[in-house]
Amino acid sequence: MSVPATVVTPPSVTELDIVIPTIRNLDFLEQWRPFFQPYHLIIVQDGDPSKKIRVPEGYDYELYNRNDIDQMLGPKSSCISFKDGACRCFGFLVSKKKYIFTIDDDCFVAKDPSGQEINALAQHLHNFLTPATPFFFNTLYDPYREGADFVRGYPFSLREGVTTAISHGLWLNIPDYDAPTQLVKPRERNTRYVDAVMTIPKGTLFPMCAMNLAFDRELIGPAMYFGLMGDGQPIGRYDDMWAGWCAKVTCDHLGLGVKTGLPYISHSKASNPFVNLQKEFKGLFWQEEIIPFFQNLTLPKECTTAQKCYIELSKLVKEKLVPIDPYFEKLSDAMVTWIDAWNEFNPSINGAATVKV
Amino acid sequence: MSVPATVVTPPSVTELDIVIPTIRNLDFLEQWRPFFQPYHLIIVQDGDPSKKIRVPEGYDYELYNRNDIDQMLGPKSSCISFKDGACRCFGFLVSKKKYIFTIDDDCFVAKDPSGQEINALAQHLHNFLTPATPFFFNTLYDPYREGADFVRGYPFSLREGVTTAISHGLWLNIPDYDAPTQLVKPRERNTRYVDAVMTIPKGTLFPMCAMNLAFDRELIGPAMYFGLMGDGQPIGRYDDMWAGWCAKVTCDHLGLGVKTGLPYISHSKASNPFVNLQKEFKGLFWQEEIIPFFQNLTLPKECTTAQKCYIELSKLVKEKLVPIDPYFEKLSDAMVTWIDAWNEFNPSINGAATVKV
Repeated sequence: MSVPATVVTPPSVTELDIVIPTIRNLDFLEQWRPFFQPYHLIIVQDGDPSKKIRVPEGYDYELYNRNDIDQMLGPKSSCISFKDGACRCFGFLVSKKKYIFTIDDDCFVAKDPSGQEINALAQHLHNFLTPATPFFFNTLYDPYREGADFVRGYPFSLREGVTTAISHGLWLNIPDYDAPTQLVKPRERNTRYVDAVMTIPKGTLFPMCAMNLAFDRELIGPAMYFGLMGDGQPIGRYDDMWAGWCAKVTCDHLGLGVKTGLPYISHSKASNPFVNLQKEFKGLFWQEEIIPFFQNLTLPKECTTAQKCYIELSKLVKEKLVPIDPYFEKLSDAMVTWIDAWNEFNPSINGAATVKV
Repeated sequence: MSVPATVVTPPSVTELDIVIPTIRNLDFLEQWRPFFQPYHLIIVQDGDPSKKIRVPEGYDYELYNRNDIDQMLGPKSSCISFKDGACRCFGFLVSKKKYIFTIDDDCFVAKDPSGQEINALAQHLHNFLTPATPFFFNTLYDPYREGADFVRGYPFSLREGVTTAISHGLWLNIPDYDAPTQLVKPRERNTRYVDAVMTIPKGTLFPMCAMNLAFDRELIGPAMYFGLMGDGQPIGRYDDMWAGWCAKVTCDHLGLGVKTGLPYISHSKASNPFVNLQKEFKGLFWQEEIIPFFQNLTLPKECTTAQKCYIELSKLVKEKLVPIDPYFEKLSDAMVTWIDAWNEFNPSINGAATVKV
């Protein structure tokens, strides 16, 4: 049972960091000030480290550029992408908070149908504070919401639900389309506010977009690695997809829940579809093999933490995806490096010490 | 791509029958006249056959009472429930149309948030005329709707979708709750209009409610058997749930799609929770074993039609559910009788002739 998203309590500032990857001045934070200013920001500057990023006054932040990443991770910095938004996962690594909210710097405050500004952080927190229901579909959507419940025929043994580890928010205005769809539908705008949050069922994969994404770092952070993208890599724009596939199979295995739906943000501008096509074109056909790989894999019972699951995934990637392209050999190695770095920066979290890498 | 539900073309009168189980005068049809009058109704009268049901003037209908059912089915009439809404499946059997829409007689025309009356039949038809996407979750919901599409990361090989066999509509006002929830929340009303249609993913079960339900009779009719409920049986109010479990595993096996969401109807009155508790109480604990049974079963490749799947299900029910209660032995036999009757009334549909019963 809750109250409407716009008035629920936002997460405590001691519990959540906002992670923003950027190559620009962060002027978009002016509009978010009433909602974001109390929080600590972790800004991951991509590209030329000598460029100075302007952060609106009054915000509390730490900022890392490529030099910082190289210095802090040493040789392990090879696992952090360069010239690609995938670099954002460095922020997940160095945060010390329970929750992460990550947002793109072209995303603004959206309004609900009544015209009220949506407090995205408060809705994400609400999504975490109520359980998820991955084992059976509830036709009235989130059963924990005010005015809703489990419908007739929903097994009572499943009504406790499971802990929510990921809250995937959506976007009004510019939808998150691939380059071919952008090219075919240049004028399409998402204007439909669907007033629902739902759990993505166990065993079902989804395209996880990092534009408006929150997760429980302690529970699923190690699986939120955004891969090797951008500079020197054959692929881009699959960073969040990769993390989504890995994180969803990990959540399914560990009995954690993934929600999608509210809150909405307003996505202001579509990126260049020709540039996007160049970045993502290998992904467009690789995913035809990668997705069945994730759909069909099973993780062994011994994998009792996100770290252990992720190490197992890295082995399966090496075994099964390298035939697609030698890139997956590098990616598999980077996944191990990532867990290594995760354990170094987060020695006390979630059984990390027991993972053998 | 579609136009809003309220203006889409309703289904052709030659393609769809409306099936209504009732023990009352059908005054509720007055309100539905602008939408339903062109269609043929199949009314299944439950209870005392000597009672005369009044149907509003101008409607084209056929009406069957218990005497008719006994006469038409002979000894096979044992598979049709008495003194329970489950009798509605007799209407599915005798229809000659491609689609069935079934509705309870306490359901009225709902309004969308703009105040416009919702043409439920038109939305159900629209749900059938666009594919379903059971293999991967689309975060912007129905990708075939105007203003929506498949999002970035949705595999291109899955964008053709599969044929939609079931369209499960929802209810404003009185939600479809079980007796315990009714008792606990006597004043709860569903006022949230969620503007979405979605495919229930493959491998995920859902509680199918028959209050506002449409299906493709040719594709899935044989699995839409409402079981043995009511008079002389130990259980009631699980008729649509039973059909939903059977139909969903059959759709999953045959590669057919199941959608839920729009259209809404307005459900006018909650049934008596004490009577309901008496009817459903065995179901409340039986479902804890029945649902895992359906979640874990697999149908053999040879089952290439809904009839073949259903015969196989009847065998599995006998094998696995009889330990719960001897009732399931009777139910298994009734499932076979139902398919027998189905084939007799529908000799030309969907490979029925090849089913050995």
